[in-house]
Amino acid sequence: MEVVRGGITAPSGFLAAGVACGIKKRGRDLVLILSRWPAVAAGVLTTNRLRAPCVERAERLLRRGIARAIIANSGNANCCTGRRGIQDCTATARQAARHLGIPSDQVFVASTGVIGRFLPMRRISVGIRRAARALSRTGSILAAEGIMTTDTRPKEIAIRFRSSGEPVTVAGIAKGAGMIAPHLATLLVFLTTDARIEKRLLEQILRFWVARTFNGITIDGEPSTNDMVLVLANGASAAPAIRRGSIGHRRFHEAIGAVCRTLAHELVRDGEGVTRLFTVRVWGAVDDRAAQRLARKVAESALVKTMVAGRDPNWGRIAAAIGAAQVPIRTDRLTIRLGRRTVFRQGEPVRISRRKLLEQVDHPEIEFGVQVGRGPGEAAVLSADLTEEYVRINAKYTS
Amino acid sequence: MEVVRGGITAPSGFLAAGVACGIKKRGRDLVLILSRWPAVAAGVLTTNRLRAPCVERAERLLRRGIARAIIANSGNANCCTGRRGIQDCTATARQAARHLGIPSDQVFVASTGVIGRFLPMRRISVGIRRAARALSRTGSILAAEGIMTTDTRPKEIAIRFRSSGEPVTVAGIAKGAGMIAPHLATLLVFLTTDARIEKRLLEQILRFWVARTFNGITIDGEPSTNDMVLVLANGASAAPAIRRGSIGHRRFHEAIGAVCRTLAHELVRDGEGVTRLFTVRVWGAVDDRAAQRLARKVAESALVKTMVAGRDPNWGRIAAAIGAAQVPIRTDRLTIRLGRRTVFRQGEPVRISRRKLLEQVDHPEIEFGVQVGRGPGEAAVLSADLTEEYVRINAKYTS
Repeated sequence: MEVVRGGITAPSGFLAAGVACGIKKRGRDLVLILSRWPAVAAGVLTTNRLRAPCVERAERLLRRGIARAIIANSGNANCCTGRRGIQDCTATARQAARHLGIPSDQVFVASTGVIGRFLPMRRISVGIRRAARALSRTGSILAAEGIMTTDTRPKEIAIRFRSSGEPVTVAGIAKGAGMIAPHLATLLVFLTTDARIEKRLLEQILRFWVARTFNGITIDGEPSTNDMVLVLANGASAAPAIRRGSIGHRRFHEAIGAVCRTLAHELVRDGEGVTRLFTVRVWGAVDDRAAQRLARKVAESALVKTMVAGRDPNWGRIAAAIGAAQVPIRTDRLTIRLGRRTVFRQGEPVRISRRKLLEQVDHPEIEFGVQVGRGPGEAAVLSADLTEEYVRINAKYTS
Repeated sequence: MEVVRGGITAPSGFLAAGVACGIKKRGRDLVLILSRWPAVAAGVLTTNRLRAPCVERAERLLRRGIARAIIANSGNANCCTGRRGIQDCTATARQAARHLGIPSDQVFVASTGVIGRFLPMRRISVGIRRAARALSRTGSILAAEGIMTTDTRPKEIAIRFRSSGEPVTVAGIAKGAGMIAPHLATLLVFLTTDARIEKRLLEQILRFWVARTFNGITIDGEPSTNDMVLVLANGASAAPAIRRGSIGHRRFHEAIGAVCRTLAHELVRDGEGVTRLFTVRVWGAVDDRAAQRLARKVAESALVKTMVAGRDPNWGRIAAAIGAAQVPIRTDRLTIRLGRRTVFRQGEPVRISRRKLLEQVDHPEIEFGVQVGRGPGEAAVLSADLTEEYVRINAKYTS
């Protein structure tokens, strides 16, 4: 398994483009991804109760699970736009289909940006034409750029492995859950692969990894209206089809995992105003669900996040967040670690010098460990600090 | 009903003091409140699963419900301090009782500040002696100062009404739920009154108002380890005892309400880095519980809070927060108001000029209205903006 260049256009049979058509004030804002052949499609969509028309559309299209293209825009979420928003979404897909000469029910639409504004359809029409003409085998990085909102850099990765001697490539681009962890921001992830695989298996593998990567950085129940993770598998590789339980299956599974993990990590690292990352690891809970809840409560806490920003080893905030998670907890069974040091053991604070405490939090990536009992439940959540920069960015987003 | 001077020492028979004994680097940090006679006590305590020893103590003492004194310190929460923390809490109460010549099981203890550090008991001993000597009829404002942590100003209020021609006074001091709304911060509220009232009725009235004021600003399930609201009623007023259903009852109820409302409002206004307040009003939900949940989700949202800070009328963030609340919602029944303007009506955005939108959010106090259906459920939550100043304060709290 090796990392290769080329992003989502590294797998055979994929083209991509990213152009600027004026939805945003500046920068690329319209993206087209095309598979030369019909691809098997699987996806994971937002659980937000208000969903943009493009999410509703994706849900419909995923039932059949055949895709040729994805058309995505940044700068406007086309959400809360009523009947006109639905029409605009359909029109976008139709125009893309016409330019590409493919059926429109094989075109997925994705949008991210401000809610409640109509799409500038005239600009988008012009953009689609230009994007269709710009499609290329080197377009991945432009596509990764084109889906950005407050992201500071494009995120792409491609990984190649061999199956029966033939190369299979798995790749992806993603855009920032801008605020990551606790709050609303759109997550867009588009994966491409030239593997030959049937829909159910593909879906299973995707769900497995989304739960362990992208859902380990965002918070259940606080997704945006437009979150979308799509994978297109066009079978263009000369390797044999991926069969359940085969070595190919194992390698493919690992490759998707590596792509998702890399992108998730990049997303957090590029979170708004982020200067350092931290992982909250909880174990000893009654079950994984309880552990998840506890880990997320700590990972979400503004007090913990600001403490990380300030390199302040104030572990009491971790304890307080644990207590606030509405999961039964006994102080006398609680142990807390900062980095490699235990600071609180089974209800008693541990004597430790201020200098050693400070050492634990003075890294670009920190780990907090929390043991809450002797149960089998465990979880890990990746999060990032909350800085003044975050507030600066978010106080003026639509302006 | 009139506002009077004197804070918690305005009701007859109460003395207070606030001294500096060196728990914090500077400022008053030890507070004593004394009733000349045994007072009926009622309280509402944190629901955090990790509770400081003083909270456990208060729970025990509230069963009997008789109090002579409250000893409170800021700068150290004495939480997650194990067995020694429990001993220190008891010692604090005993020393105060000895200096005041009262039974120690009539002394409540309250603490707020950093978690996981032992109380500096020698300093506290000295402080208790000095506070006991400093007790006075004008000590309310010093006590209000002494419980402050990151609060920028003391909060006190006293209200007087007449019952059968005799004055009855209700008063309170409070310290900041520093970060207010979504996050962990200690709320301390001490109310005093010279009303004569039995414990059950007092408790009922307190719970009623705490639910509608202090719980309307903090978030269920994210309380601090040390939150405490106490009321002491010493019966020193010459007015007749307050009987259920009487005019006196109604007036007393209103007076407690006014005191709680004023303090809650002051708390939010003095939240860390707060520059403007906003109220989220939700109606048309299935029931009040669902409405509360929706209102809180919006009030807590970092995106909504930063948008208020930036005077940015980006109402899509309100919609997205509503959708993320895990309450069944239909877009086509959703209506959103910014201030006095409807911006989204039953699933359709409303055309409105940018200037008019901006007008709605350019006030020190804003209201967001969200109608989610035709049910009877409604709720209102008061919150505040999230500014860079908040982050600046919280990144360096223990330092």
